[in-house]
Amino acid sequence: MSLIRIDMTDQRVTSTELPERYRRLGGRGLTAQLLADEVNPRCYALGRDNKLIFAPGLLTGTSAPCSGRTSLGAKSPLTGTIKESNVGGIAGQYLAGQGIRALVIEGAPRAARQWLLILGDGQPRLEIRDELAGRGNYATVESLRAEFGADCAVLSVGPTGERRGALATVAVCDAEGRPTRHAGRGGMGAVMASKGLKAIVVRRPARRGPLPVDSARFSRTVKDFAKGLVAGKKALTSYGTAVLVNMVNEAGGLPTRNFSTGHNDQSDRFSGEKLLQLARERGGRTGHNCHPGCVIRCSNVFHGADGSYLTAGLEYETIALFGPNCGVHDLDQIARFDRLCDDLGIDTMEMGVALGVAMEGGVLEFGDADAMAAAIRATASDEPLGKILRQGATVTGRIFGVERVPAVKGQSLSGYDPRAMKGTGVTYATSTMGADHTAGNCLPGRGGLMGHEATGQTQLSRATQEMSMACDLLGVCVFVGPVAETMPALAELLSAFWGEEVTGAQLLEQGKQVLRVEAEFNRQAGISSRQNDLPAFFRSEPLPNNGQTFDVPVEELNALDFAVVSGADTTG
Amino acid sequence: MSLIRIDMTDQRVTSTELPERYRRLGGRGLTAQLLADEVNPRCYALGRDNKLIFAPGLLTGTSAPCSGRTSLGAKSPLTGTIKESNVGGIAGQYLAGQGIRALVIEGAPRAARQWLLILGDGQPRLEIRDELAGRGNYATVESLRAEFGADCAVLSVGPTGERRGALATVAVCDAEGRPTRHAGRGGMGAVMASKGLKAIVVRRPARRGPLPVDSARFSRTVKDFAKGLVAGKKALTSYGTAVLVNMVNEAGGLPTRNFSTGHNDQSDRFSGEKLLQLARERGGRTGHNCHPGCVIRCSNVFHGADGSYLTAGLEYETIALFGPNCGVHDLDQIARFDRLCDDLGIDTMEMGVALGVAMEGGVLEFGDADAMAAAIRATASDEPLGKILRQGATVTGRIFGVERVPAVKGQSLSGYDPRAMKGTGVTYATSTMGADHTAGNCLPGRGGLMGHEATGQTQLSRATQEMSMACDLLGVCVFVGPVAETMPALAELLSAFWGEEVTGAQLLEQGKQVLRVEAEFNRQAGISSRQNDLPAFFRSEPLPNNGQTFDVPVEELNALDFAVVSGADTTG
Repeated sequence: MSLIRIDMTDQRVTSTELPERYRRLGGRGLTAQLLADEVNPRCYALGRDNKLIFAPGLLTGTSAPCSGRTSLGAKSPLTGTIKESNVGGIAGQYLAGQGIRALVIEGAPRAARQWLLILGDGQPRLEIRDELAGRGNYATVESLRAEFGADCAVLSVGPTGERRGALATVAVCDAEGRPTRHAGRGGMGAVMASKGLKAIVVRRPARRGPLPVDSARFSRTVKDFAKGLVAGKKALTSYGTAVLVNMVNEAGGLPTRNFSTGHNDQSDRFSGEKLLQLARERGGRTGHNCHPGCVIRCSNVFHGADGSYLTAGLEYETIALFGPNCGVHDLDQIARFDRLCDDLGIDTMEMGVALGVAMEGGVLEFGDADAMAAAIRATASDEPLGKILRQGATVTGRIFGVERVPAVKGQSLSGYDPRAMKGTGVTYATSTMGADHTAGNCLPGRGGLMGHEATGQTQLSRATQEMSMACDLLGVCVFVGPVAETMPALAELLSAFWGEEVTGAQLLEQGKQVLRVEAEFNRQAGISSRQNDLPAFFRSEPLPNNGQTFDVPVEELNALDFAVVSGADTTG
Repeated sequence: MSLIRIDMTDQRVTSTELPERYRRLGGRGLTAQLLADEVNPRCYALGRDNKLIFAPGLLTGTSAPCSGRTSLGAKSPLTGTIKESNVGGIAGQYLAGQGIRALVIEGAPRAARQWLLILGDGQPRLEIRDELAGRGNYATVESLRAEFGADCAVLSVGPTGERRGALATVAVCDAEGRPTRHAGRGGMGAVMASKGLKAIVVRRPARRGPLPVDSARFSRTVKDFAKGLVAGKKALTSYGTAVLVNMVNEAGGLPTRNFSTGHNDQSDRFSGEKLLQLARERGGRTGHNCHPGCVIRCSNVFHGADGSYLTAGLEYETIALFGPNCGVHDLDQIARFDRLCDDLGIDTMEMGVALGVAMEGGVLEFGDADAMAAAIRATASDEPLGKILRQGATVTGRIFGVERVPAVKGQSLSGYDPRAMKGTGVTYATSTMGADHTAGNCLPGRGGLMGHEATGQTQLSRATQEMSMACDLLGVCVFVGPVAETMPALAELLSAFWGEEVTGAQLLEQGKQVLRVEAEFNRQAGISSRQNDLPAFFRSEPLPNNGQTFDVPVEELNALDFAVVSGADTTG
């Protein structure tokens, strides 16, 4: 198992065994610890002192279901915090299969070139591909697959990342070679571009890997776990994450017109049911898997009205934030924005929220889909509006004088209004990375709590964040749970994989330790847990549809400081 | 002595005696304590929950020399920290003479109107003056003096403040009715505009006030103190603060081309000597006082080449940051920018640094004075460049992708390169308000230290910040010192004023207590002393002229946390 370092200052490549002290860390645990060990928390995120780290999870590449995730870590140019951005697609399995546990991109080239990194083809090597400059992710992947064959994984930065947009993603292609899976949050694409790296090609490994120590026990556990997931996640398989449209709308938390209300009466026009209906009418499909071995298969392929491919992986958050949040109700328009963002390399959540903020600031009209498409395209140009929007919702709010900016620590909220889903609100407020639902999403009913109840949400969020971290360490998609019952299954998988007993409690403890590392990085960056709160308007403006405000006491949020070992005093 | 509250939500005016617990606080001490007591540190700075507080110093309005200063306090839209912006001009003496110790502007009007507040003319009252919308400070003052007579003080917001520029000032007129003195830093103009307040007129009080308890002792002390200042500050009287051009250039710390070097070989074109020469040739003058009773008289009146009035109060920092920092060497051009900024209500320091950053980002050329004037004007328009620049240097750097942004906690540095003047560098890094030289400027030689020495600068900066605070409490201009020898004189003045003994040590102790209040506000806002550092490039890039980097250890800066009582543990 290797750690590969690419110093972009002189394009030096070194490949070593993963040091012993990192062996038990994978995914987000490995990116966090390497950043804590090697990166100054006060560095300029787009400068030579930041590092971009790719780490598949501990189980990535094995036959464990839904285990194909990769963590990307860096100091974020969007939030100034530590960042882990988690992505599916086939790259994680290919990296793991090549024996790569961590890939560290460091330094920065002196001259502006477009570098391509090739992995799994003898020694890792860098080659210049200046002709890829400005090219969209679709064209980039197409060109690289033409060169390297269809059986490679491609990770790439789009034109918005090349322009250092703080909402720029790193795209990862799916099994069909489409750049539709994105390490979306926190501007990892801008960090990659700041290193002069346009794309990474990973050759398909000769065999799956890594191999479990106790393979019989592992296979058995995989089979049982998979069976449970297939049975329990049917709605995700049938409708994709878009199944949440009606669910969240019912719960009164569907972001509408820059989070000014939580209910939308046109949700049948962009719901999961609608998505499935269009797939049946036009071709396309739901139940698509973003990487081989996923049994939940929440991805989808979306065809346009003409029956030809338009986009894939059209997710709930994209629909919510480009849709009702921007006054758009037409799924075809939303799919068009999704395609644009996939191609330009843009986080659909940050972009949708930034557009909503710009609409509230009078820059464009709610519901004007053509103006939205133009604004999204502008992020890959020198147009002033694009320069502003590509820095995300918070900067957009500053420039256009908007008070109601739904963001925490510089990162936009996601597709869940925190007044109706208070556990997710606590996660937004307290996550080590700004408002990140994947850090601990608390859907209504989870933990026996309804979204509008204030009491208990902080405890629920904390537990969910710890369990989500456990998934992120293993490279297992958070859609397997994460709930209390998931933990024994994950521990059993890891026990069989390592050939030694690991309990769910131990796995959680490791997760807590990584959260501490992340929180300590932020503390050193000058971002304290006193910033653990939502913008004031969520406390003062009731949702018109249900009268709810966000009323979890701020003291609870400030006290949820992962840097502090339970029981210790917090003065941060 | 009264505390006046203006609730702009319903234009309710209340006037009460200053509560007993605030009696011993003046100026910055009063603004800080009122903010700490009444404003949520996490509030939206341009929203209804912020408050804008005007407080003359304890000695303002008396015959104490150079005591005419007023503190403006609010949560800053530029830095997110607590803010005190200190200003001269005649308003402080008029407020104090009217018996007003604090003026608190709170709430926010529901409709966009331009309100005028009239003080000292019976009960305080608000009147609508919508016709002043968009008007520059010069025209605003002219119109109000036409209405209320030439013997009133005017405080006003210019068009850039009306557009909520985070670099917008509150202008205060001098004795000639020119809006040339500015509460410049931290966007106080935007806060005032967010309250719907365009201007304040203060009638000239019938007599000076307040009166000292022991007037004989007070007069005696005033006489001695003034004599010392007249003798000791001749250079400021002769050349204005522009005397620093050659001094700082010699010290190797004159910001040049966005702080890329610290020496400029054309400094004789914009030095204090040149300023005096032009005043002699064209009319205009140095030795002008910004308020009656100032014996230092560092202000000046600058005439254009045609011999007519162009601007007044052309200060060193304006010259350094619009001049060499932007590649401009012509004093007439710099004076033109100063006039523009006075009229539009813009902090010349934040603007000069933002322009230097934009130049480094390729947005305009170093030395292109016409493009600079257009860019300054744009901050009062809807042009995208203006919208960006008026949010200050940090946001400008984000938008244009510039790493070298000379700013701390969101506020630009001032006219002193911290690599050559490390004590001032420590002040930039550790002040409770972002990079503010007036919080504790350490000119070369102060405290027996040369600017390039690293050892001892943190102690020097801390002591200077505490002494500067003592000045700010009394409303005495920091140009009286602040050095150790100043403290006994200030204490003697206060003792005579109160009719009870106050020592220099007690005055300093009170200053430390106010610094604690400010630092605690910031801590609650989530801005910890871990942000006490300069941008990394000051540590990594040596000044070409002397090879100096900023090498004061970051641990020293982090440890200079005013919230922490000496000896206590800091974990913030």
